[in-house]
Amino acid sequence: MFEQLGLIGCGLMGGSFALALKRAGLVQRVVGYSKSPSTTDRARQMGVIDVEAPSALLAVAGADIVLLAVPVSATEATLKAIKHLVTPNMLVMDVGSTKTDVVQAARRALRDQVGSFVPAHPITGREVSGVEHAEADLYSGRQVILTPIERTLTAQLKKAEEVWTALGCRVSSMSPESHDEAFAAISHLPHLLAFAFINGLAGQSQADTFLSLAGPGFRDFTRIAGGEPKIWRDIFLANREELLTQSQLFQQALQRLEHLVRSDDPQALEDMLTLASETRTHWRMGAQRTSKGR
Amino acid sequence: MFEQLGLIGCGLMGGSFALALKRAGLVQRVVGYSKSPSTTDRARQMGVIDVEAPSALLAVAGADIVLLAVPVSATEATLKAIKHLVTPNMLVMDVGSTKTDVVQAARRALRDQVGSFVPAHPITGREVSGVEHAEADLYSGRQVILTPIERTLTAQLKKAEEVWTALGCRVSSMSPESHDEAFAAISHLPHLLAFAFINGLAGQSQADTFLSLAGPGFRDFTRIAGGEPKIWRDIFLANREELLTQSQLFQQALQRLEHLVRSDDPQALEDMLTLASETRTHWRMGAQRTSKGR
Repeated sequence: MFEQLGLIGCGLMGGSFALALKRAGLVQRVVGYSKSPSTTDRARQMGVIDVEAPSALLAVAGADIVLLAVPVSATEATLKAIKHLVTPNMLVMDVGSTKTDVVQAARRALRDQVGSFVPAHPITGREVSGVEHAEADLYSGRQVILTPIERTLTAQLKKAEEVWTALGCRVSSMSPESHDEAFAAISHLPHLLAFAFINGLAGQSQADTFLSLAGPGFRDFTRIAGGEPKIWRDIFLANREELLTQSQLFQQALQRLEHLVRSDDPQALEDMLTLASETRTHWRMGAQRTSKGR
Repeated sequence: MFEQLGLIGCGLMGGSFALALKRAGLVQRVVGYSKSPSTTDRARQMGVIDVEAPSALLAVAGADIVLLAVPVSATEATLKAIKHLVTPNMLVMDVGSTKTDVVQAARRALRDQVGSFVPAHPITGREVSGVEHAEADLYSGRQVILTPIERTLTAQLKKAEEVWTALGCRVSSMSPESHDEAFAAISHLPHLLAFAFINGLAGQSQADTFLSLAGPGFRDFTRIAGGEPKIWRDIFLANREELLTQSQLFQQALQRLEHLVRSDDPQALEDMLTLASETRTHWRMGAQRTSKGR
Protein backbone atom coordinates (compact mmCIF):
# COMPACT_ATOMS: atom_id res chain seq x y z
CA MET A 1 0.00 0.00 0.00
CA PHE A 2 2.83 2.39 0.92
CA GLU A 3 6.52 2.43 0.26
CA GLN A 4 7.84 4.59 3.06
CA LEU A 5 6.40 5.90 6.30
CA GLY A 6 7.89 9.09 7.65
CA LEU A 7 7.26 8.93 11.37
CA ILE A 8 7.63 12.13 13.37
CA GLY A 9 7.44 11.29 17.04
CA CYS A 10 8.44 7.71 17.87
CA GLY A 11 6.59 7.36 21.20
CA LEU A 12 3.67 5.12 22.17
CA MET A 13 1.25 6.37 19.50
CA GLY A 14 3.73 6.77 16.65
CA GLY A 15 5.67 3.61 17.43
CA SER A 16 2.49 1.56 17.63
CA PHE A 17 1.33 2.90 14.24
CA ALA A 18 4.65 1.91 12.65
CA LEU A 19 4.48 -1.58 14.18
CA ALA A 20 0.86 -2.04 13.05
CA LEU A 21 1.62 -0.90 9.50
CA LYS A 22 4.59 -3.24 9.30
CA ARG A 23 2.71 -6.22 10.70
CA ALA A 24 -0.10 -5.65 8.20
CA GLY A 25 2.44 -5.54 5.39
CA LEU A 26 1.30 -2.04 4.44
CA VAL A 27 4.70 -0.35 4.35
CA GLN A 28 8.16 -1.32 3.21
CA ARG A 29 10.32 1.08 5.18
CA VAL A 30 9.90 3.35 8.21
CA VAL A 31 12.07 6.41 8.61
CA GLY A 32 11.67 7.95 12.04
CA TYR A 33 12.51 11.18 13.82
CA SER A 34 12.02 12.11 17.46
CA LYS A 35 12.98 15.26 19.32
CA SER A 36 14.97 13.13 21.71
CA PRO A 37 17.76 11.19 19.92
CA SER A 38 17.63 8.46 22.58
CA THR A 39 13.98 7.76 21.66
CA THR A 40 14.80 7.48 17.96
CA ASP A 41 17.74 5.25 18.83
CA ARG A 42 15.58 2.95 20.97
CA ALA A 43 12.90 2.85 18.26
CA ARG A 44 15.48 1.63 15.76
CA GLN A 45 16.88 -0.96 18.15
CA MET A 46 13.36 -2.25 18.78
CA GLY A 47 12.65 -2.50 15.04
CA VAL A 48 9.88 0.11 15.25
CA ILE A 49 11.70 2.22 12.66
CA ASP A 50 14.27 1.10 10.11
CA VAL A 51 16.21 4.33 9.67
CA GLU A 52 16.81 7.29 11.99
CA ALA A 53 16.32 10.69 10.41
CA PRO A 54 18.27 13.66 11.82
CA SER A 55 15.30 16.02 11.38
CA ALA A 56 11.55 16.01 10.81
CA LEU A 57 12.11 17.26 7.25
CA LEU A 58 14.47 14.41 6.42
CA ALA A 59 12.01 11.88 7.88
CA VAL A 60 9.56 13.07 5.24
CA ALA A 61 12.00 12.90 2.30
CA GLY A 62 10.94 10.00 0.08
CA ALA A 63 7.85 9.16 2.16
CA ASP A 64 4.41 8.54 0.66
CA ILE A 65 2.77 8.45 4.09
CA VAL A 66 3.68 10.69 7.04
CA LEU A 67 2.42 10.43 10.59
CA LEU A 68 2.83 13.21 13.12
CA ALA A 69 2.64 11.74 16.60
CA VAL A 70 3.72 14.76 18.61
CA PRO A 71 1.95 16.79 21.33
CA VAL A 72 -0.81 18.87 19.69
CA SER A 73 1.00 22.06 20.69
CA ALA A 74 3.94 21.02 18.47
CA THR A 75 1.77 20.45 15.38
CA GLU A 76 2.26 23.83 13.74
CA ALA A 77 6.05 23.98 14.17
CA THR A 78 6.37 20.39 12.93
CA LEU A 79 4.23 20.99 9.85
CA LYS A 80 6.21 24.15 9.07
CA ALA A 81 9.42 22.18 9.30
CA ILE A 82 8.26 19.59 6.73
CA LYS A 83 6.18 21.89 4.48
CA HIS A 84 8.72 22.04 1.65
CA LEU A 85 8.61 18.29 1.08
CA VAL A 86 4.83 17.81 1.35
CA THR A 87 3.30 16.95 -2.05
CA PRO A 88 -0.27 16.28 -3.24
CA ASN A 89 0.63 12.57 -3.57
CA MET A 90 1.58 12.28 0.08
CA LEU A 91 -0.80 11.35 2.90
CA VAL A 92 0.00 13.34 6.05
CA MET A 93 -1.92 12.57 9.26
CA ASP A 94 -1.73 13.35 12.93
CA VAL A 95 -3.13 11.44 15.93
CA GLY A 96 -4.02 14.38 18.18
CA SER A 97 -6.92 14.41 20.64
CA THR A 98 -8.08 17.89 19.60
CA LYS A 99 -8.84 18.86 16.04
CA THR A 100 -9.92 22.51 15.67
CA ASP A 101 -6.50 23.77 16.76
CA VAL A 102 -4.72 21.13 14.66
CA VAL A 103 -6.67 22.14 11.55
CA GLN A 104 -5.91 25.82 12.16
CA ALA A 105 -2.23 24.99 12.61
CA ALA A 106 -2.26 22.93 9.39
CA ARG A 107 -3.87 25.74 7.40
CA ARG A 108 -1.25 28.20 8.62
CA ALA A 109 1.72 25.89 8.27
CA LEU A 110 0.95 24.00 5.05
CA ARG A 111 -0.97 26.66 3.10
CA ASP A 112 -1.31 25.36 -0.48
CA GLN A 113 -0.37 21.84 0.60
CA VAL A 114 -3.02 21.58 3.34
CA GLY A 115 -5.02 19.21 1.09
CA SER A 116 -2.55 16.41 1.79
CA PHE A 117 -3.24 16.62 5.50
CA VAL A 118 -5.99 14.40 6.92
CA PRO A 119 -6.54 15.15 10.62
CA ALA A 120 -7.06 11.89 12.51
CA HIS A 121 -7.92 10.95 16.07
CA PRO A 122 -7.64 7.27 16.91
CA ILE A 123 -9.57 6.71 20.16
CA THR A 124 -7.07 4.75 22.11
CA GLY A 125 -4.32 5.36 24.58
CA ARG A 126 -2.72 4.02 27.69
CA GLU A 127 -1.55 5.55 30.95
CA VAL A 128 2.02 4.82 29.94
CA SER A 129 4.04 6.53 27.26
CA GLY A 130 7.26 5.98 25.37
CA VAL A 131 8.33 3.74 22.53
CA GLU A 132 9.04 0.87 24.93
CA HIS A 133 5.27 0.46 25.34
CA ALA A 134 4.53 0.60 21.61
CA GLU A 135 2.53 -2.38 20.38
CA ALA A 136 1.11 -3.38 17.01
CA ASP A 137 -2.32 -3.95 18.58
CA LEU A 138 -2.85 -0.50 20.09
CA TYR A 139 -5.25 0.58 17.33
CA SER A 140 -7.01 -2.63 16.43
CA GLY A 141 -10.72 -2.66 17.21
CA ARG A 142 -10.72 1.09 17.98
CA GLN A 143 -12.62 3.96 16.42
CA VAL A 144 -10.75 6.54 14.36
CA ILE A 145 -12.31 9.94 13.72
CA LEU A 146 -11.18 11.85 10.64
CA THR A 147 -11.95 15.57 10.47
CA PRO A 148 -11.35 16.59 6.85
CA ILE A 149 -11.88 20.19 5.76
CA GLU A 150 -13.19 21.55 2.44
CA ARG A 151 -9.65 21.68 1.02
CA THR A 152 -8.74 18.08 1.95
CA LEU A 153 -7.92 16.05 -1.18
CA THR A 154 -10.40 13.23 -1.76
CA ALA A 155 -7.57 10.90 -2.76
CA GLN A 156 -5.78 11.38 0.55
CA LEU A 157 -8.98 11.12 2.59
CA LYS A 158 -9.73 7.81 0.87
CA LYS A 159 -6.21 6.53 1.56
CA ALA A 160 -6.55 7.55 5.21
CA GLU A 161 -9.81 5.62 5.52
CA GLU A 162 -8.21 2.60 3.89
CA VAL A 163 -5.13 2.50 6.05
CA TRP A 164 -7.00 2.77 9.36
CA THR A 165 -9.56 0.22 8.19
CA ALA A 166 -6.73 -2.13 7.25
CA LEU A 167 -5.42 -1.78 10.82
CA GLY A 168 -8.75 -3.03 12.17
CA CYS A 169 -10.27 0.35 13.05
CA ARG A 170 -13.80 1.62 12.53
CA VAL A 171 -13.46 4.94 10.70
CA SER A 172 -15.89 7.83 10.79
CA SER A 173 -15.74 11.50 9.79
CA MET A 174 -17.02 14.70 11.36
CA SER A 175 -16.11 18.37 11.40
CA PRO A 176 -13.22 19.47 13.64
CA GLU A 177 -15.67 21.56 15.69
CA SER A 178 -18.12 18.71 16.26
CA HIS A 179 -15.20 16.48 17.19
CA ASP A 180 -13.92 18.89 19.80
CA GLU A 181 -17.38 19.45 21.25
CA ALA A 182 -17.97 15.71 21.62
CA PHE A 183 -14.54 14.93 23.03
CA ALA A 184 -14.74 17.75 25.54
CA ALA A 185 -17.82 15.94 26.89
CA ILE A 186 -16.68 12.32 26.83
CA SER A 187 -12.92 12.49 27.21
CA HIS A 188 -11.44 15.85 28.17
CA LEU A 189 -13.90 16.55 30.99
CA PRO A 190 -13.51 13.10 32.60
CA HIS A 191 -9.75 13.64 32.57
CA LEU A 192 -10.13 17.09 34.15
CA LEU A 193 -12.42 15.60 36.83
CA ALA A 194 -10.09 12.70 37.56
CA PHE A 195 -7.10 15.04 37.90
CA ALA A 196 -9.13 17.40 40.14
CA PHE A 197 -10.37 14.51 42.26
CA ILE A 198 -6.82 13.31 42.95
CA ASN A 199 -5.66 16.88 43.63
CA GLY A 200 -8.51 17.36 46.11
CA LEU A 201 -7.58 14.12 47.84
CA ALA A 202 -3.82 14.74 47.84
CA GLY A 203 -4.35 18.11 49.51
CA GLN A 204 -5.84 16.56 52.65
CA SER A 205 -3.70 15.76 55.69
CA GLN A 206 -5.00 12.19 55.82
CA ALA A 207 -4.38 11.53 52.13
CA ASP A 208 -2.02 8.60 52.75
CA THR A 209 -4.47 6.83 55.05
CA PHE A 210 -7.35 7.41 52.65
CA LEU A 211 -5.36 6.14 49.67
CA SER A 212 -4.33 2.98 51.52
CA LEU A 213 -8.00 2.02 51.84
CA ALA A 214 -9.02 2.64 48.24
CA GLY A 215 -10.37 -0.28 46.24
CA PRO A 216 -11.31 -1.29 42.70
CA GLY A 217 -13.87 1.51 42.19
CA PHE A 218 -11.21 4.13 42.94
CA ARG A 219 -8.71 2.30 40.74
CA ASP A 220 -10.92 2.45 37.65
CA PHE A 221 -12.35 5.92 38.28
CA THR A 222 -8.87 7.44 38.59
CA ARG A 223 -6.97 5.42 35.98
CA ILE A 224 -7.05 8.33 33.54
CA ALA A 225 -5.55 10.68 36.16
CA GLY A 226 -2.29 8.82 35.54
CA GLY A 227 -2.14 10.41 32.07
CA GLU A 228 0.85 12.35 30.79
CA PRO A 229 0.64 15.90 32.27
CA LYS A 230 2.09 17.71 29.22
CA ILE A 231 -0.27 15.92 26.82
CA TRP A 232 -3.33 16.80 28.92
CA ARG A 233 -2.19 20.34 29.60
CA ASP A 234 -2.06 20.86 25.82
CA ILE A 235 -5.44 19.23 25.24
CA PHE A 236 -7.12 21.28 27.99
CA LEU A 237 -5.68 24.53 26.64
CA ALA A 238 -6.39 23.68 23.00
CA ASN A 239 -10.03 22.82 23.69
CA ARG A 240 -10.53 25.29 26.52
CA GLU A 241 -13.92 26.75 25.64
CA GLU A 242 -15.69 23.44 25.04
CA LEU A 243 -14.05 21.95 28.13
CA LEU A 244 -15.14 24.80 30.40
CA THR A 245 -18.67 24.62 28.99
CA GLN A 246 -18.82 20.92 29.77
CA SER A 247 -17.37 21.49 33.22
CA GLN A 248 -20.18 23.97 33.96
CA LEU A 249 -22.83 21.44 32.87
CA PHE A 250 -21.17 18.85 35.09
CA GLN A 251 -21.10 21.16 38.11
CA GLN A 252 -24.80 21.91 37.66
CA ALA A 253 -25.54 18.17 37.65
CA LEU A 254 -23.34 17.66 40.71
CA GLN A 255 -25.05 20.47 42.59
CA ARG A 256 -28.46 19.00 41.76
CA LEU A 257 -27.34 15.71 43.28
CA GLU A 258 -25.87 17.51 46.31
CA HIS A 259 -29.15 19.33 46.77
CA LEU A 260 -31.07 16.05 46.77
CA VAL A 261 -28.63 14.51 49.25
CA ARG A 262 -28.96 17.54 51.52
CA SER A 263 -32.73 17.85 51.28
CA ASP A 264 -33.23 14.20 52.18
CA ASP A 265 -35.54 13.37 49.28
CA PRO A 266 -34.75 9.67 48.81
CA GLN A 267 -37.09 9.12 45.85
CA ALA A 268 -35.86 12.09 43.82
CA LEU A 269 -32.27 11.12 44.58
CA GLU A 270 -32.91 7.53 43.55
CA ASP A 271 -34.52 8.71 40.30
CA MET A 272 -31.43 10.74 39.38
CA LEU A 273 -29.10 7.85 40.23
CA THR A 274 -31.30 5.49 38.21
CA LEU A 275 -31.06 7.76 35.16
CA ALA A 276 -27.26 7.68 35.41
CA SER A 277 -27.04 3.98 36.17
CA GLU A 278 -29.31 2.99 33.28
CA THR A 279 -27.53 5.28 30.84
CA ARG A 280 -24.19 3.76 31.80
CA THR A 281 -25.47 0.18 31.83
CA HIS A 282 -26.93 0.50 28.33
CA TRP A 283 -23.78 2.08 26.90
CA ARG A 284 -21.48 -0.14 24.90
CA MET A 285 -18.07 1.00 23.73
CA GLY A 286 -17.99 1.38 19.96
CA ALA A 287 -21.72 0.72 19.56
CA GLN A 288 -23.33 2.48 16.62
CA ARG A 289 -25.33 5.52 17.53
CA THR A 290 -29.06 4.86 17.96
CA SER A 291 -31.84 7.25 18.76
CA LYS A 292 -33.75 6.74 21.97
CA GLY A 293 -36.68 4.40 21.59
CA ARG A 294 -35.30 2.63 18.55
CA MET B 1 -15.13 -23.13 62.54
CA PHE B 2 -18.91 -22.57 62.46
CA GLU B 3 -21.87 -24.87 62.43
CA GLN B 4 -24.55 -22.73 60.88
CA LEU B 5 -24.57 -19.47 58.97
CA GLY B 6 -27.74 -17.43 59.16
CA LEU B 7 -27.71 -15.37 55.98
CA ILE B 8 -30.06 -12.40 55.79
CA GLY B 9 -30.02 -11.06 52.26
CA CYS B 10 -29.02 -13.63 49.63
CA GLY B 11 -27.81 -11.23 46.90
CA LEU B 12 -24.34 -10.71 45.45
CA MET B 13 -22.60 -9.87 48.74
CA GLY B 14 -24.43 -12.34 50.98
CA GLY B 15 -24.45 -15.15 48.45
CA SER B 16 -20.74 -14.75 47.79
CA PHE B 17 -20.00 -14.87 51.52
CA ALA B 18 -21.94 -18.13 51.87
CA LEU B 19 -20.15 -19.67 48.88
CA ALA B 20 -16.75 -18.57 50.20
CA LEU B 21 -17.44 -19.95 53.68
CA LYS B 22 -18.59 -23.26 52.22
CA ARG B 23 -15.64 -23.60 49.87
CA ALA B 24 -13.23 -22.92 52.75
CA GLY B 25 -14.97 -25.60 54.82
CA LEU B 26 -15.78 -23.06 57.52
CA VAL B 27 -19.48 -23.78 57.87
CA GLN B 28 -21.65 -26.88 57.80
CA ARG B 29 -25.02 -25.43 56.94
CA VAL B 30 -26.37 -22.17 55.53
CA VAL B 31 -29.90 -21.05 56.34
CA GLY B 32 -30.93 -18.11 54.22
CA TYR B 33 -33.63 -15.47 54.16
CA SER B 34 -34.30 -12.78 51.56
CA LYS B 35 -37.09 -10.24 51.38
CA SER B 36 -37.94 -11.59 47.94
CA PRO B 37 -38.91 -15.29 48.08
CA SER B 38 -37.73 -15.78 44.48
CA THR B 39 -34.21 -14.74 45.52
CA THR B 40 -34.16 -17.21 48.41
CA ASP B 41 -35.49 -19.88 46.09
CA ARG B 42 -32.81 -19.23 43.50
CA ALA B 43 -30.12 -19.16 46.19
CA ARG B 44 -31.19 -22.63 47.32
CA GLN B 45 -31.32 -23.98 43.78
CA MET B 46 -27.81 -22.65 43.18
CA GLY B 47 -26.51 -24.28 46.37
CA VAL B 48 -25.67 -20.91 47.90
CA ILE B 49 -27.93 -21.73 50.88
CA ASP B 50 -29.06 -25.14 52.10
CA VAL B 51 -32.33 -24.19 53.72
CA GLU B 52 -34.79 -21.36 53.10
CA ALA B 53 -35.99 -19.56 56.21
CA PRO B 54 -39.42 -17.89 56.14
CA SER B 55 -38.19 -14.90 58.16
CA ALA B 56 -35.00 -13.14 59.24
CA LEU B 57 -35.59 -14.33 62.80
CA LEU B 58 -35.87 -17.97 61.73
CA ALA B 59 -32.69 -17.65 59.63
CA VAL B 60 -30.89 -16.82 62.90
CA ALA B 61 -32.37 -19.70 64.93
CA GLY B 62 -29.57 -22.18 65.58
CA ALA B 63 -26.89 -20.06 63.87
CA ASP B 64 -23.49 -19.35 65.41
CA ILE B 65 -22.63 -16.85 62.69
CA VAL B 66 -25.03 -14.36 61.13
CA LEU B 67 -24.39 -12.12 58.16
CA LEU B 68 -26.64 -9.19 57.30
CA ALA B 69 -26.23 -8.38 53.63
CA VAL B 70 -29.06 -5.91 53.22
CA PRO B 71 -29.11 -2.23 52.16
CA VAL B 72 -27.71 -0.12 55.04
CA SER B 73 -31.10 1.57 55.46
CA ALA B 74 -32.61 -1.83 56.37
CA THR B 75 -30.03 -2.57 59.08
CA GLU B 76 -32.03 -1.33 62.08
CA ALA B 77 -35.29 -3.07 61.16
CA THR B 78 -33.42 -6.31 60.41
CA LEU B 79 -31.50 -6.27 63.69
CA LYS B 80 -34.73 -5.55 65.60
CA ALA B 81 -36.35 -8.52 63.91
CA ILE B 82 -33.61 -10.92 65.04
CA LYS B 83 -32.78 -9.37 68.42
CA HIS B 84 -34.52 -12.01 70.52
CA LEU B 85 -32.31 -14.79 69.17
CA VAL B 86 -28.96 -12.93 69.31
CA THR B 87 -26.72 -14.36 72.03
CA PRO B 88 -23.21 -13.50 73.30
CA ASN B 89 -21.90 -16.65 71.61
CA MET B 90 -23.08 -15.58 68.21
CA LEU B 91 -21.05 -13.54 65.72
CA VAL B 92 -23.28 -11.06 63.87
CA MET B 93 -21.79 -8.98 61.05
CA ASP B 94 -22.91 -6.73 58.26
CA VAL B 95 -21.19 -5.79 55.00
CA GLY B 96 -22.39 -2.19 54.66
CA SER B 97 -20.39 0.58 53.04
CA THR B 98 -21.16 3.08 55.82
CA LYS B 99 -20.49 2.40 59.46
CA THR B 100 -21.53 5.28 61.76
CA ASP B 101 -25.20 4.84 60.90
CA VAL B 102 -24.93 1.05 61.09
CA VAL B 103 -23.38 1.24 64.56
CA GLN B 104 -26.10 3.64 65.73
CA ALA B 105 -28.75 1.32 64.33
CA ALA B 106 -27.12 -1.66 66.08
CA ARG B 107 -27.00 0.14 69.43
CA ARG B 108 -30.69 1.01 69.18
CA ALA B 109 -31.84 -2.35 67.86
CA LEU B 110 -29.69 -4.81 69.79
CA ARG B 111 -29.26 -2.91 73.09
CA ASP B 112 -27.70 -5.39 75.56
CA GLN B 113 -26.73 -7.75 72.76
CA VAL B 114 -24.82 -5.15 70.73
CA GLY B 115 -21.54 -6.78 71.82
CA SER B 116 -22.18 -9.69 69.43
CA PHE B 117 -22.29 -7.34 66.46
CA VAL B 118 -19.03 -6.69 64.61
CA PRO B 119 -19.56 -4.04 61.90
CA ALA B 120 -17.67 -5.06 58.77
CA HIS B 121 -16.98 -3.48 55.40
CA PRO B 122 -15.36 -5.73 52.82
CA ILE B 123 -13.95 -3.47 50.09
CA THR B 124 -15.26 -5.21 47.04
CA GLY B 125 -18.25 -5.07 44.80
CA ARG B 126 -19.31 -5.32 41.22
CA GLU B 127 -21.63 -3.28 39.01
CA VAL B 128 -24.01 -6.20 38.92
CA SER B 129 -26.19 -7.46 41.73
CA GLY B 130 -28.26 -10.50 42.53
CA VAL B 131 -27.48 -14.01 43.72
CA GLU B 132 -26.90 -15.17 40.14
CA HIS B 133 -23.62 -13.21 40.18
CA ALA B 134 -22.51 -14.54 43.58
CA GLU B 135 -19.05 -16.10 43.49
CA ALA B 136 -16.83 -17.69 46.12
CA ASP B 137 -13.92 -15.45 45.06
CA LEU B 138 -15.59 -12.05 45.54
CA TYR B 139 -13.79 -11.38 48.81
CA SER B 140 -10.43 -13.08 48.30
CA GLY B 141 -7.48 -10.71 48.21
CA ARG B 142 -9.62 -7.77 49.37
CA GLN B 143 -9.37 -5.55 52.43
CA VAL B 144 -12.00 -5.81 55.16
CA ILE B 145 -12.44 -2.97 57.62
CA LEU B 146 -13.94 -3.80 61.02
CA THR B 147 -15.28 -0.92 63.10
CA PRO B 148 -15.79 -2.34 66.62
CA ILE B 149 -17.13 -0.12 69.40
CA GLU B 150 -16.27 -0.14 73.10
CA ARG B 151 -19.04 -2.66 73.83
CA THR B 152 -17.99 -5.14 71.12
CA LEU B 153 -17.09 -8.51 72.66
CA THR B 154 -13.42 -9.41 72.18
CA ALA B 155 -14.34 -13.01 71.43
CA GLN B 156 -16.60 -12.01 68.53
CA LEU B 157 -14.12 -9.45 67.19
CA LYS B 158 -11.44 -12.16 67.16
CA LYS B 159 -13.77 -14.58 65.37
CA ALA B 160 -14.60 -11.91 62.80
CA GLU B 161 -10.91 -11.29 62.14
CA GLU B 162 -10.33 -15.03 61.78
CA VAL B 163 -13.17 -15.70 59.37
CA TRP B 164 -12.28 -12.88 56.98
CA THR B 165 -8.60 -13.82 57.14
CA ALA B 166 -9.54 -17.41 56.34
CA LEU B 167 -11.36 -16.11 53.25
CA GLY B 168 -8.12 -14.51 52.03
CA CYS B 169 -8.84 -10.95 53.17
CA ARG B 170 -6.52 -8.45 54.81
CA VAL B 171 -8.33 -7.27 57.94
CA SER B 172 -7.89 -3.93 59.69
CA SER B 173 -9.84 -2.00 62.32
CA MET B 174 -10.76 1.63 62.75
CA SER B 175 -13.50 3.68 64.37
CA PRO B 176 -16.84 3.98 62.53
CA GLU B 177 -16.26 7.74 62.20
CA SER B 178 -12.78 7.38 60.69
CA HIS B 179 -14.13 4.76 58.34
CA ASP B 180 -16.90 7.00 57.07
CA GLU B 181 -14.57 9.96 56.68
CA ALA B 182 -12.11 7.91 54.62
CA PHE B 183 -14.74 6.22 52.47
CA ALA B 184 -16.50 9.50 51.74
CA ALA B 185 -13.20 10.59 50.20
CA ILE B 186 -12.16 7.48 48.27
CA SER B 187 -15.43 5.75 47.44
CA HIS B 188 -18.63 7.71 48.04
CA LEU B 189 -17.41 10.90 46.37
CA PRO B 190 -16.12 9.14 43.22
CA HIS B 191 -19.52 7.47 42.92
CA LEU B 192 -21.32 10.80 43.32
CA LEU B 193 -19.05 12.35 40.67
CA ALA B 194 -19.51 9.47 38.24
CA PHE B 195 -23.31 9.63 38.62
CA ALA B 196 -23.27 13.44 38.20
CA PHE B 197 -21.01 13.18 35.16
CA ILE B 198 -23.41 10.78 33.41
CA ASN B 199 -26.40 12.93 34.41
CA GLY B 200 -24.70 16.02 32.98
CA LEU B 201 -24.00 14.17 29.75
CA ALA B 202 -27.43 12.55 29.45
CA GLY B 203 -29.09 15.96 29.79
CA GLN B 204 -27.51 17.25 26.57
CA SER B 205 -29.32 17.05 23.24
CA GLN B 206 -26.34 15.38 21.58
CA ALA B 207 -25.90 12.78 24.31
CA ASP B 208 -26.38 9.81 21.97
CA THR B 209 -23.77 11.06 19.50
CA PHE B 210 -21.32 11.83 22.28
CA LEU B 211 -21.80 8.42 23.90
CA SER B 212 -21.26 6.62 20.59
CA LEU B 213 -17.74 8.10 20.43
CA ALA B 214 -16.66 7.31 23.97
CA GLY B 215 -13.67 5.05 24.47
CA PRO B 216 -11.77 3.13 27.14
CA GLY B 217 -11.09 6.17 29.37
CA PHE B 218 -14.81 6.90 29.58
CA ARG B 219 -15.53 3.21 30.16
CA ASP B 220 -13.30 2.98 33.23
CA PHE B 221 -14.11 6.43 34.65
CA THR B 222 -17.85 5.73 34.57
CA ARG B 223 -17.92 2.04 35.52
CA ILE B 224 -19.05 2.88 39.06
CA ALA B 225 -21.96 4.95 37.72
CA GLY B 226 -23.55 1.61 36.81
CA GLY B 227 -23.98 0.90 40.55
CA GLU B 228 -27.31 -0.02 42.11
CA PRO B 229 -29.29 3.24 42.63
CA LYS B 230 -30.98 2.18 45.89
CA ILE B 231 -27.69 1.08 47.45
CA TRP B 232 -25.96 4.35 46.57
CA ARG B 233 -28.93 6.48 47.55
CA ASP B 234 -28.71 4.91 51.01
CA ILE B 235 -24.96 5.34 51.24
CA PHE B 236 -25.10 9.00 50.17
CA LEU B 237 -27.85 9.76 52.70
CA ALA B 238 -26.23 7.78 55.50
CA ASN B 239 -22.85 9.49 55.07
CA ARG B 240 -24.23 12.83 53.96
CA GLU B 241 -22.07 15.23 55.98
CA GLU B 242 -18.73 13.64 55.14
CA LEU B 243 -19.76 13.26 51.50
CA LEU B 244 -20.76 16.91 51.14
CA THR B 245 -17.52 17.99 52.82
CA GLN B 246 -15.50 15.94 50.34
CA SER B 247 -17.57 17.24 47.45
CA GLN B 248 -16.70 20.81 48.48
CA LEU B 249 -12.99 19.98 48.59
CA PHE B 250 -13.30 18.43 45.15
CA GLN B 251 -15.08 21.45 43.69
CA GLN B 252 -12.36 23.73 45.05
CA ALA B 253 -9.73 21.58 43.32
CA LEU B 254 -11.76 21.56 40.09
CA GLN B 255 -12.16 25.32 40.16
CA ARG B 256 -8.42 25.74 40.69
CA LEU B 257 -7.80 23.66 37.57
CA GLU B 258 -10.46 25.58 35.64
CA HIS B 259 -8.82 28.83 36.66
CA LEU B 260 -5.46 27.63 35.34
CA VAL B 261 -7.04 26.49 32.08
CA ARG B 262 -8.78 29.85 31.70
CA SER B 263 -5.80 31.97 32.66
CA ASP B 264 -3.55 30.21 30.17
CA ASP B 265 -0.73 29.47 32.60
CA PRO B 266 0.70 26.30 31.04
CA GLN B 267 3.39 25.72 33.65
CA ALA B 268 1.10 26.08 36.68
CA LEU B 269 -1.46 23.84 34.97
CA GLU B 270 1.17 21.24 34.17
CA ASP B 271 2.38 21.31 37.79
CA MET B 272 -1.12 20.56 39.10
CA LEU B 273 -1.61 17.76 36.58
CA THR B 274 1.80 16.35 37.48
CA LEU B 275 0.85 16.26 41.17
CA ALA B 276 -2.28 14.28 40.32
CA SER B 277 -0.58 12.02 37.80
CA GLU B 278 2.28 11.13 40.14
CA THR B 279 -0.03 10.52 43.10
CA ARG B 280 -2.13 8.16 40.98
CA THR B 281 0.85 6.42 39.40
CA HIS B 282 2.43 5.69 42.78
CA TRP B 283 -0.79 4.38 44.29
CA ARG B 284 -1.16 0.62 44.55
CA MET B 285 -4.41 -1.02 45.57
CA GLY B 286 -4.11 -2.65 48.96
CA ALA B 287 -0.59 -1.31 49.56
CA GLN B 288 0.24 -0.69 53.20
CA ARG B 289 0.15 2.92 54.22
CA THR B 290 3.55 4.63 54.11
CA SER B 291 4.54 8.15 54.98
CA LYS B 292 5.85 10.34 52.21
CA GLY B 293 9.58 10.07 51.76
CA ARG B 294 9.84 6.66 53.36
